[in-house]
Amino acid sequence: MIGIGVVGYGYWGPNLARVVGETDGCRLAAIADASPAAEARAAKRHPSTAITSDWRALVARADVDAVVVATPVHTHFDIALEALRAGKHVLVEKPITQTARQAEILIDEAARRGLALMVDHTFVYTPEVQKIKSIVESGEAGEIFYYDSTRINLGMFQSDVNVIWDLAVHDLAILDSLFGLTPLAVSASGAGHILGSPENLAHVTIFFEGAMTAHLNVNWLAPVKVRQTFITGSQKMIVYDDLQPSEKVKVYDRGVTSDGEQDDAYQRRVSYRIGDMWAPHVPIREALRTEFDHFRDCILTGSTPLTDGRSGLAVVRMLESATLSMRQRGHPIDLELGKVA
Amino acid sequence: MIGIGVVGYGYWGPNLARVVGETDGCRLAAIADASPAAEARAAKRHPSTAITSDWRALVARADVDAVVVATPVHTHFDIALEALRAGKHVLVEKPITQTARQAEILIDEAARRGLALMVDHTFVYTPEVQKIKSIVESGEAGEIFYYDSTRINLGMFQSDVNVIWDLAVHDLAILDSLFGLTPLAVSASGAGHILGSPENLAHVTIFFEGAMTAHLNVNWLAPVKVRQTFITGSQKMIVYDDLQPSEKVKVYDRGVTSDGEQDDAYQRRVSYRIGDMWAPHVPIREALRTEFDHFRDCILTGSTPLTDGRSGLAVVRMLESATLSMRQRGHPIDLELGKVA
Amino acid sequence: MIGIGVVGYGYWGPNLARVVGETDGCRLAAIADASPAAEARAAKRHPSTAITSDWRALVARADVDAVVVATPVHTHFDIALEALRAGKHVLVEKPITQTARQAEILIDEAARRGLALMVDHTFVYTPEVQKIKSIVESGEAGEIFYYDSTRINLGMFQSDVNVIWDLAVHDLAILDSLFGLTPLAVSASGAGHILGSPENLAHVTIFFEGAMTAHLNVNWLAPVKVRQTFITGSQKMIVYDDLQPSEKVKVYDRGVTSDGEQDDAYQRRVSYRIGDMWAPHVPIREALRTEFDHFRDCILTGSTPLTDGRSGLAVVRMLESATLSMRQRGHPIDLELGKVA
Amino acid sequence: MIGIGVVGYGYWGPNLARVVGETDGCRLAAIADASPAAEARAAKRHPSTAITSDWRALVARADVDAVVVATPVHTHFDIALEALRAGKHVLVEKPITQTARQAEILIDEAARRGLALMVDHTFVYTPEVQKIKSIVESGEAGEIFYYDSTRINLGMFQSDVNVIWDLAVHDLAILDSLFGLTPLAVSASGAGHILGSPENLAHVTIFFEGAMTAHLNVNWLAPVKVRQTFITGSQKMIVYDDLQPSEKVKVYDRGVTSDGEQDDAYQRRVSYRIGDMWAPHVPIREALRTEFDHFRDCILTGSTPLTDGRSGLAVVRMLESATLSMRQRGHPIDLELGKVA
Repeated sequence: MIGIGVVGYGYWGPNLARVVGETDGCRLAAIADASPAAEARAAKRHPSTAITSDWRALVARADVDAVVVATPVHTHFDIALEALRAGKHVLVEKPITQTARQAEILIDEAARRGLALMVDHTFVYTPEVQKIKSIVESGEAGEIFYYDSTRINLGMFQSDVNVIWDLAVHDLAILDSLFGLTPLAVSASGAGHILGSPENLAHVTIFFEGAMTAHLNVNWLAPVKVRQTFITGSQKMIVYDDLQPSEKVKVYDRGVTSDGEQDDAYQRRVSYRIGDMWAPHVPIREALRTEFDHFRDCILTGSTPLTDGRSGLAVVRMLESATLSMRQRGHPIDLELGKVA
Repeated sequence: MIGIGVVGYGYWGPNLARVVGETDGCRLAAIADASPAAEARAAKRHPSTAITSDWRALVARADVDAVVVATPVHTHFDIALEALRAGKHVLVEKPITQTARQAEILIDEAARRGLALMVDHTFVYTPEVQKIKSIVESGEAGEIFYYDSTRINLGMFQSDVNVIWDLAVHDLAILDSLFGLTPLAVSASGAGHILGSPENLAHVTIFFEGAMTAHLNVNWLAPVKVRQTFITGSQKMIVYDDLQPSEKVKVYDRGVTSDGEQDDAYQRRVSYRIGDMWAPHVPIREALRTEFDHFRDCILTGSTPLTDGRSGLAVVRMLESATLSMRQRGHPIDLELGKVA
Repeated sequence: MIGIGVVGYGYWGPNLARVVGETDGCRLAAIADASPAAEARAAKRHPSTAITSDWRALVARADVDAVVVATPVHTHFDIALEALRAGKHVLVEKPITQTARQAEILIDEAARRGLALMVDHTFVYTPEVQKIKSIVESGEAGEIFYYDSTRINLGMFQSDVNVIWDLAVHDLAILDSLFGLTPLAVSASGAGHILGSPENLAHVTIFFEGAMTAHLNVNWLAPVKVRQTFITGSQKMIVYDDLQPSEKVKVYDRGVTSDGEQDDAYQRRVSYRIGDMWAPHVPIREALRTEFDHFRDCILTGSTPLTDGRSGLAVVRMLESATLSMRQRGHPIDLELGKVA
Repeated sequence: MIGIGVVGYGYWGPNLARVVGETDGCRLAAIADASPAAEARAAKRHPSTAITSDWRALVARADVDAVVVATPVHTHFDIALEALRAGKHVLVEKPITQTARQAEILIDEAARRGLALMVDHTFVYTPEVQKIKSIVESGEAGEIFYYDSTRINLGMFQSDVNVIWDLAVHDLAILDSLFGLTPLAVSASGAGHILGSPENLAHVTIFFEGAMTAHLNVNWLAPVKVRQTFITGSQKMIVYDDLQPSEKVKVYDRGVTSDGEQDDAYQRRVSYRIGDMWAPHVPIREALRTEFDHFRDCILTGSTPLTDGRSGLAVVRMLESATLSMRQRGHPIDLELGKVA
């Protein structure tokens, strides 16, 4: 039985604590939160779990084998590092850290000690993204041309992070899972409309090898909620609409091909393919449960998590670079030098 | 009775010719198209109109008071210039010309001769855009924060112009009509996926005075058709969905305000306003008919068209700058120097 | 070349006349309409066609081999009968006649003379209904359980026929095409809300052999337009939504099966099947063109039209019986006696 | 503090027990369920509540002032009657009883003892239905012409009740709340497609005074879920779509009027009004919480519940009559005699 401690019992922590209790082979050993109100809520829902206001005390407990970090981003690094140093496996809320440098340190520490370091990139574990991943990896969609996502709503304005760190992080995690996140460059633009708040809307374009691009439209100040992603390849076009009650993933047999000839001086000879649409049945399963099963298996077998430290680092690098470009009105940031280093 | 000659009877020309015939005070005097097949089609539908293969002959006709130019973009300049020099009023298909310099010459020529020079920015004359314009100009929507448009489908690939020139042109025309198109800078990214064809997808961000931005998502290679625009102000949020069978324009009484205080170190004090939604009835009227009534009135009264040469020039400048930025992966193009010049 | 005369140039007649001209092997010989305005419109659009105010003159013309009847329903019988007696093939707008007895007379007349008698049940010729027909007839959908259609909008109130005759007629024609329209009984309810007008809303249930039922919801007084039909079988469930811009036909691999056992006293043991959804590509083709190709072929080969007089009669019988039931608040009308007779 | 006992901890009981605990002035005193598994679940979630397998023991407790009945329908009558006889207020799950006669006995018993008898017609307490009620009662919608509801999905087949008792019950409760449920007649049709199961689809038409009708389309065997209701009056048309994420209630300023004159022999002179659409903001509140606040207030003040025994009886009478008509293929059931009795 793996003993698990959850640090942070605010917005997301209660979900994590609940799922620990629902995961075979895991036991919710302790919860830590500095807020007395949060402690009280935790105690009420988990009467047989140790509750503490001191995360260091939680990390030090002998019955805690793994630590789940669900605190504000600026505290991730200290807590995760101390947990690793205490020999505990670690699962951190996204984004893994505030800076790429911090993520690198955590990765090294985990590697040196042979501990699991995993990031809670929840979307990667949804049945829908897993279905899309299987379609993309099977080659059925052909060469991927672009990923274009809209993730907007009238949302929770935050004062410590901009909208890229809050919303684009989901798409970056999905991109890393589907394709590996080693792009050539990024260009972003954005704006803040509430005095003294960080940017509340942004558009991010990511340039990959070949002609593949990704574009992320994120916005806290939209009248309606949209969660829609297009993933277009040479053979199939996928639409993933997370707000549909069913048929969230649709696969269109549509496309364009050119034989390289010209029809005339002004029109290239292009032919269109318009075939069937297919919405595969995707079984309903809570992503967090799949994720915790995977975390447990990685601890038991020593295998590398799907969303490991490297994945968390890749995402944070993109968040940093996109923010940098956004502050310069879209000036492209070259990411290849980084790859070499 | 104003005699009107239509040059170009390909894809759009037949609509223009038909509407000339439906416009009070106008008479379809002549049609010119170099293609024998187009000539034959024109002759069949307009048996009492003069048909010619030579646009110069049409321009020279005494019964032609105004020339409508519906030919490929690269021919607009020559035809329009010769028509103006012959003392004819001119209505040109969008975009007005291939280069900003050409548009400037046409504007000068029309001004010197006191002739109407109008661009067929059709969307500006739709009842929906006119309703949005009245809402924006009344101040009801408050300070405008952003315009964000998605205009994608599996579309007609063109080999002479990229997708910005083909699709973003509509949004630029609408932006000019709503706000005046004098932005500070533009950043664009895009990609081409068909060998030898120009870019088939692009994202364009335009930076205006204050914090206002516009973003245009245009794409010829999307599985489904989307025509959706968000126009968000401090008091109201407008959604314009051109594919809805009715209620194309929706006005949401939603927004966010901040009193500038912090809730705590990490959360700004923000309050949300979520009120009613309202879909004003918009009477159905063909945009082209409204546009031709306006063209006739401008000819008769000497007033300046809503979509005049200046408007056409502003749009072409943006098309040029956005393309330039797109070829440099989003490198922002400063547009203020241009304004001074 | 088959010479075709169109009687009636009001709402639907111009479409029929246009399609005659677009049908290979057919020639629009003459148009008749008693209204001078309609005559003028016809003359303008069809300058080389004979125009007359007298349908009897049209029927008598030697260059008219077939007569298309697009006049008000109460005139169908006289015109069609005289055309058949003059040896002309006949295509009549739906519904074929005002009474079943009239339809029987036309059927007899056409049969005796070996002439084609066809009804313009347009929906039967849409690519969507033809696709559904091929799915149903292949057995892929299994045993059909029900057909349930909603056909409502804020519509054209008519004063001579009720909403069943105006709208349910489409579903009855589709039902006849898909399954043959020989039901056991019908029950209908309805109401009229505009003083002196016939019923503007109705619900019609049709009972077939086995457990199959059909239900038609028709309404002229609805705030939004709906055209949606569910066709559910033991193996597949089909949704046909005619207002979707694409994917009008969707096939769901869903259903329920019972092994006849009880789980307990109150719950039957039922298992649910929830599989993929599939939207077959349906090529775009105007139904009227398919219909006129078929009419021409029937004339040339002597084969029986898909929507022949018998089909028209079956539909009129249902319209009569449904109206009768509606006037008695749903009192069921037994249709089996009629079958025997 | 009102002590409340909940009988039945199966599908719906846990929600009721939770909401009791969230209602000011109420205390969850006891839970009864004959199933050991249900008892165990109840004990885990409500550690400080008395749990028993014997509902009679619960009813007899001194600290139970009111009994909530959430057991299968056939047990409602016995439990509710014994609770009333023991001097307890009663809230019963819908439908109140299996027969109208049973409901009458409960009503008499509650009246004689001055106890609150309320039915859990949950939908009546949703913010959406309350908003619609305020619009209808204000007269803003004018004279109501019809209520037309579609409530279908691939659903939970039940073996003891047909689909009318399971789904139409919701609309009947809403109808009673909006208009009072004293119709003139009912006609229903339906069918069962799973051997040995009750009817899984039904269409019910209800005839009211004047020309008002209601129609309910209920179905357990549909490929997609629909929850859509049209309520059309002479001045406004309301669409209530419960599956929309927001704007569930839309009010259309549309309609038709006739001045009673004829345009000609075949067309009544009718004019159409097509105005704005308006979606009032409806605050989000759980219906059960509103309902329990109301139950508590009725107990404390002695006022009559909105969904009282009379309402429960009216609904059961309709369920009985609709089922009776359905078994006779729509034969209308006259309800006026019942009213006199």
